[in-house]
Amino acid sequence: MSSPLVVIAGVGRGTGTAIALKFASKYPVVCLARNADNYNETVGKVNASGGKAIGIRTDLASADSVKGAFNQIEKEFGVGYGLAAAVFNASTRPVRKPFLELTEAEYVGGYEVLGRGAFLFSQFTLPRLLKSVAQSSSSSSSSSSSSYPPTLIFTGATASVKSSAQFASFSNGKWALRSLSQSLAKEFGPKGVHVSHAIIDGVIGIPSTLDSMKEADPATMIAPEAIASAYWYLHTQPRSAFSWEIDIRPFCESW
Amino acid sequence: MSSPLVVIAGVGRGTGTAIALKFASKYPVVCLARNADNYNETVGKVNASGGKAIGIRTDLASADSVKGAFNQIEKEFGVGYGLAAAVFNASTRPVRKPFLELTEAEYVGGYEVLGRGAFLFSQFTLPRLLKSVAQSSSSSSSSSSSSYPPTLIFTGATASVKSSAQFASFSNGKWALRSLSQSLAKEFGPKGVHVSHAIIDGVIGIPSTLDSMKEADPATMIAPEAIASAYWYLHTQPRSAFSWEIDIRPFCESW
Amino acid sequence: MSSPLVVIAGVGRGTGTAIALKFASKYPVVCLARNADNYNETVGKVNASGGKAIGIRTDLASADSVKGAFNQIEKEFGVGYGLAAAVFNASTRPVRKPFLELTEAEYVGGYEVLGRGAFLFSQFTLPRLLKSVAQSSSSSSSSSSSSYPPTLIFTGATASVKSSAQFASFSNGKWALRSLSQSLAKEFGPKGVHVSHAIIDGVIGIPSTLDSMKEADPATMIAPEAIASAYWYLHTQPRSAFSWEIDIRPFCESW
Amino acid sequence: MSSPLVVIAGVGRGTGTAIALKFASKYPVVCLARNADNYNETVGKVNASGGKAIGIRTDLASADSVKGAFNQIEKEFGVGYGLAAAVFNASTRPVRKPFLELTEAEYVGGYEVLGRGAFLFSQFTLPRLLKSVAQSSSSSSSSSSSSYPPTLIFTGATASVKSSAQFASFSNGKWALRSLSQSLAKEFGPKGVHVSHAIIDGVIGIPSTLDSMKEADPATMIAPEAIASAYWYLHTQPRSAFSWEIDIRPFCESW
Repeated sequence: MSSPLVVIAGVGRGTGTAIALKFASKYPVVCLARNADNYNETVGKVNASGGKAIGIRTDLASADSVKGAFNQIEKEFGVGYGLAAAVFNASTRPVRKPFLELTEAEYVGGYEVLGRGAFLFSQFTLPRLLKSVAQSSSSSSSSSSSSYPPTLIFTGATASVKSSAQFASFSNGKWALRSLSQSLAKEFGPKGVHVSHAIIDGVIGIPSTLDSMKEADPATMIAPEAIASAYWYLHTQPRSAFSWEIDIRPFCESW
Repeated sequence: MSSPLVVIAGVGRGTGTAIALKFASKYPVVCLARNADNYNETVGKVNASGGKAIGIRTDLASADSVKGAFNQIEKEFGVGYGLAAAVFNASTRPVRKPFLELTEAEYVGGYEVLGRGAFLFSQFTLPRLLKSVAQSSSSSSSSSSSSYPPTLIFTGATASVKSSAQFASFSNGKWALRSLSQSLAKEFGPKGVHVSHAIIDGVIGIPSTLDSMKEADPATMIAPEAIASAYWYLHTQPRSAFSWEIDIRPFCESW
Repeated sequence: MSSPLVVIAGVGRGTGTAIALKFASKYPVVCLARNADNYNETVGKVNASGGKAIGIRTDLASADSVKGAFNQIEKEFGVGYGLAAAVFNASTRPVRKPFLELTEAEYVGGYEVLGRGAFLFSQFTLPRLLKSVAQSSSSSSSSSSSSYPPTLIFTGATASVKSSAQFASFSNGKWALRSLSQSLAKEFGPKGVHVSHAIIDGVIGIPSTLDSMKEADPATMIAPEAIASAYWYLHTQPRSAFSWEIDIRPFCESW
Repeated sequence: MSSPLVVIAGVGRGTGTAIALKFASKYPVVCLARNADNYNETVGKVNASGGKAIGIRTDLASADSVKGAFNQIEKEFGVGYGLAAAVFNASTRPVRKPFLELTEAEYVGGYEVLGRGAFLFSQFTLPRLLKSVAQSSSSSSSSSSSSYPPTLIFTGATASVKSSAQFASFSNGKWALRSLSQSLAKEFGPKGVHVSHAIIDGVIGIPSTLDSMKEADPATMIAPEAIASAYWYLHTQPRSAFSWEIDIRPFCESW
């Protein structure tokens, strides 16, 4: 029986990569992203260091594309695989615009990945997370099952709890995502799957941000590795103590 | 110059009707609903009693349909009309289902009216609400302008702030709607438009509910007229004291 | 049988006075304040205009003082009086200080009125509010009973929901007050008493503020009369539609 | 230069003990409790296993008692000690009573430890936590300074965010405590001290609870060790990613 996997949706060059590297130290990792450039280096690094990773180009807002991705996972790892963790780290680029200048496509665009995409990702991962719960119960001593409760984590933002002027498009998707995470936490917690939501409240120090904000001090930003550590901690929480929500911000953040 | 109008989206036989009757005592009222049966009686009652009301069949989730409705308003009331109030009372029927039995259409269906529809309604009403602000300022003594700040009200529910197990579809739309109302309140409040969100936390005593819950005591339900009074009060709030959010529940509700 | 009364705690020259004048149009009003100068003018004005008002010097943080005040009400209005409404508008002056410079007395001082005082006020008013519920039920056609559900309203502030740096003293009392209002709403709502909490989020345009902020535009402040209108609206809500919480801010407030 | 210490207020036989044992693996630990029986066993266990712990009988609601405790710490560890972490785990026994049966002493009693006590504890620990920040900066390679940001953690409960009927006494203290933690997080985060608040939402499986709820399944309760692990994780968060709040509940909890 194979080891349970970890699937990460939204592996860009910042947070997603850090999460992939963190979880790859224990599990085979599948990286989903629209652009293979985003995960190729990470996948190579994991495989070179003795871990196992694959990347699959996926449009999370498309049911066909998501289905295709999970078919490919099955081909790669066999039909019986379970999931130790699934991380929904995908997002949309925040649109900042006076409301009356927003097009319908821009507004509902905020929902495509964060609403529809999160639904599709949850639909495909929850049965595999539940499978891991069953495996843990039936053979808790087996090396093939994770010793931590299967975990589904969603990445949120400041905009998940505050809806600012001119950010209606971004926040409507982020609020929808947070509501999904809460409903799933309540439905699947009792079934043994730990569902969490992280409010990332601050600028993340990813390469593209550091390039574009040259005058900013990286020490005032959230390190992607610190988010990965937080997700790993959430994953290690025992059934006895699940956290649904955690906020994460730099020490100097004003809030 | 004509009197400012009130447009109400989602005029069913309960809350929407009560709101229409309340606002019709001062303003001409336009009732939007997918089914003309829902507003015909109300429209007739208002017109018979000396008020002015029209109904327009509208699919709020369709840009073309919403555009058509506002074209028709313009034909009826002239191109220069302003809005005294706009009420988004539309919703979707809550789907209660184990998450893994939800179809993609059912899930995103929760967003079609509450996300896309609320966006479209706001896009078409905000310029007319802003027009009323301008009219109030330029001719505050004129009988043609409303004496109350133009108001945009959204109807929310318990599911707007709590996302229960098996209600992911409904709550994801309701949370998205609430986030829209907050962003708009912050952007348009300073421009003089009062944007509010009402959390209706309890069973509303509308005819269909009373029929289906025969054993329930109507005295334990929210009277639609009481919601209409709350919306009217919000409308009458001066610029000096806008409320963004109000919760409404029966005295006996457990919360 | 006498008309039910209204008791207002914390009648300063701004909000409390506006509330007293508003409620005095229908009910005899009792004004409590530490300093008689704060209510003398208001009491005089009400009595001169045909209404009925009295003022009682009261230290809300002292059980003896509060007990004395309610004894005096009984002497004035008879032992059988009921309350139509009770408004807890008392507060403490916000202390803004680096936390490590706060004395113990300053910190717990934030609780004396908002914690202890609110408890004492609620203890003495709730039995009289319940009495009015009973009177309304037994003789709903009687002119002696209020036609609106007996109401207990607490005045909150921005600091009731956000706890800012250097405001720990003020916010700890305000949060304690808000928690009291929620617990009481849940316990006494089903008994027919409407308990509400208002978040006043902005500068109130009271005389002392207007004097000290001469450069500020009064149009950007909350008018005390608008708060009084909001409280009156809450008081008129029927059993079918109680609001626990309402936020109130000027249209131009940044939040 | 001595190692930084950890001070834990409220070391009962459940959570406080688990926290003490967890932090004792890296730091000398000081246990404060009103009753020495609560910490004697823990202190003995730590010292026997090569760690270092002392216990001090302390009434957290008394300034003199708290001052005495910190004097004793100074005698024991020298005037120059810094703190790696301070944990406020003290609470009061929840009083469940109809509001009108509560005495003033019972109501404000909910504030004595959670309001006054938390203030006193924070006043005495924050200067020592700041001292550790300074030591970390000046000699980050020194073995005498903690490698993790100094941390101040407060234990909250369900009652910290919900104020239920008949629990006004308990929740008023818990809300006050939460507001303190937020204000301190905002003031001292930028100074390098990590301030957190944990919402413990469920029954904790401590010996006395297990005895009194014999029919309950311990697997449905929060293990004290899991809370200790959460606090330890919070302590290890780098400056780049501080969490203010985390909720903790058993997988099967209904919420």
